[in-house]
Amino acid sequence: MTSTELHVVVPAGGSGTRLWPLSRASNPKFLHPLTGTGRSLLQATFDRLAPLSSPANLIVVTGTAHAAGVARQLPDLPERNILVEPFARDSCAAIALAAAVIDKRSPGAVMASFAADHLITDTAEFAATVARAVDGARDGHLMTIGITPTRPETGYGYLRCSETARRSVLQRVLEFKEKPSLEVATRYVESGSYLWNASMFVWRTDVFLAELQARRPDVAGPIAAIAAAWDTDAQDDVLAELWPTVPKVAVEYAVMEPAAEDGKVATVPGDFGWSDIGDFETVADLLGSDVGDGGREFRTSGPSRSVVVDGEGVITVPAAGRLVATLGVRDVIVVDTADAVLVCARDRAQDIKRLTEILRDRGELDCL
Amino acid sequence: MTSTELHVVVPAGGSGTRLWPLSRASNPKFLHPLTGTGRSLLQATFDRLAPLSSPANLIVVTGTAHAAGVARQLPDLPERNILVEPFARDSCAAIALAAAVIDKRSPGAVMASFAADHLITDTAEFAATVARAVDGARDGHLMTIGITPTRPETGYGYLRCSETARRSVLQRVLEFKEKPSLEVATRYVESGSYLWNASMFVWRTDVFLAELQARRPDVAGPIAAIAAAWDTDAQDDVLAELWPTVPKVAVEYAVMEPAAEDGKVATVPGDFGWSDIGDFETVADLLGSDVGDGGREFRTSGPSRSVVVDGEGVITVPAAGRLVATLGVRDVIVVDTADAVLVCARDRAQDIKRLTEILRDRGELDCL
Repeated sequence: MTSTELHVVVPAGGSGTRLWPLSRASNPKFLHPLTGTGRSLLQATFDRLAPLSSPANLIVVTGTAHAAGVARQLPDLPERNILVEPFARDSCAAIALAAAVIDKRSPGAVMASFAADHLITDTAEFAATVARAVDGARDGHLMTIGITPTRPETGYGYLRCSETARRSVLQRVLEFKEKPSLEVATRYVESGSYLWNASMFVWRTDVFLAELQARRPDVAGPIAAIAAAWDTDAQDDVLAELWPTVPKVAVEYAVMEPAAEDGKVATVPGDFGWSDIGDFETVADLLGSDVGDGGREFRTSGPSRSVVVDGEGVITVPAAGRLVATLGVRDVIVVDTADAVLVCARDRAQDIKRLTEILRDRGELDCL
Repeated sequence: MTSTELHVVVPAGGSGTRLWPLSRASNPKFLHPLTGTGRSLLQATFDRLAPLSSPANLIVVTGTAHAAGVARQLPDLPERNILVEPFARDSCAAIALAAAVIDKRSPGAVMASFAADHLITDTAEFAATVARAVDGARDGHLMTIGITPTRPETGYGYLRCSETARRSVLQRVLEFKEKPSLEVATRYVESGSYLWNASMFVWRTDVFLAELQARRPDVAGPIAAIAAAWDTDAQDDVLAELWPTVPKVAVEYAVMEPAAEDGKVATVPGDFGWSDIGDFETVADLLGSDVGDGGREFRTSGPSRSVVVDGEGVITVPAAGRLVATLGVRDVIVVDTADAVLVCARDRAQDIKRLTEILRDRGELDCL
């Protein structure tokens, strides 16, 4: 490894509640084989990043509940590169911690950050896009990789670019936009100058940390102190003292949005078959297979156990080896797991997170 | 026991496919605790009949697959009173065999036959109605107990009576009617002279067997030979030789319909809270409890495991201890068992039998 090699950070947090009951707090979606192969989303992410870096320069930031799962799924990842947060403090804290630890180990290194639960089909194009972004980062930009949108998705944030986005051509990001309405999203996509924000970032650690210090000293301060103690005997004590003081904030909101306003953010549009495996619709679309009579099944292993009769728009996820049979129903998602069964209207799939909150309120903690 | 005491026959056959996957070929509905208590339908039937007879005069006719289950659920029933058919030959064969065996043991006895899977709430009124029917049987009638209809049910057969039906008053049955259309059923109920056929029969064994001989000598012949060999060393050989030759026919079609045309059938209208636990609608209506937000749950044991959110007309049957959650769905039945999950549109509940046939065709034999 050299200090000029790319350092890669994978924040592996979040339980993927929109995939409940398949995804659980104790067994989140990034540890599931939701890739069409036997590999988990996290492992597929690792496989995709391996050509860009070396295991010594790959860092996973995760929570206490998943450290063991991460360690076992990625046996080639050095233990010192699994950064375990005492508890979740949102994406700014996770990414800033990684940046500060990398900067301590390799000052001024270029780092990239990619989610643990995305799927990418064209890995060569992905690698080429990252290389362009690394060039931009070396020049001092806070880089993002925006995804060329393929539909007016209302579940994602958008990047407003300075001109019509062209593949692999670096350009300024003028603004970060929150999840839009369908009408607004349609306008975005038709304009040609909006990209999906996939929270893919590339920057020099020193550039990012300086920007963080300027924008959010309340985050930068404790993170700098924690990073200083990292890999030393003081690590635990400093974490215990300072981690609870780190504000919970998304990195987009804390750093990228204000930096974009100041012209410091750029993007390289990416077009490499990207998917956010965020809900059962996507899982069924990308990884499912038709079972006839209006049914589409996603199964993680084993033979098909779905029998759909007189169905229409039925998605089945038989994840416990049991038979799942539907008769005369339409536009529902049926998920069968070892200890819970979900039957959800397809147009309510975005509310599964709310359902898990109701379950928590009713004391059904075992199933969460 | 005396020969004047009533003999009672309970044909316990049929797997209750409309209650699949709760009811199975190997574990049919009459062995399930679908009674609102811990007792199975068969046990509740036995409890209800006990005051009318004695265990020595109660006979259960069942199949090879369920003989052991019947024996264990009814420990007070003498083994010789469990008549095991080599394979199912429809109701005429089962009832004729029981009649012939009773007639051999107690010539000219009065016998009554009641299904193993019905629910009756007013057992005192039931007993009184049976007593009236026994009087009619002693006078030589082939008696039925018709149920005063409470709705234009299209799933049952009907008895056309000679006049407006009045509770407990014996009258002639003019005709047996097959399951009618809703329009016809509505006319039946409004007329006041139609009763539901619940396949409850009371007659003298000699009267029934003579009628069977006259109408269907092809059934009466082998049954008489089998009964002659019953309780002897020859029983097995004669069964093996003759049982396969017994025609498959319903007792209504073979005997009661033609006998009614000849004025030999009478009925006592019954009004004792009768239900045929034939489908999930009935199970939920009678034995379910509301779980809020449009959900109604039937559970055989344990605490509620159903969480219905924004539901309407949702029936849940969590029969495997797992959590069953629904979100935003309406008018569906969700049944969770150890090895199969069913999600069925409520207006398709009558087609669950068809679904089980499709499952058999697809080789899902373990779940049937």
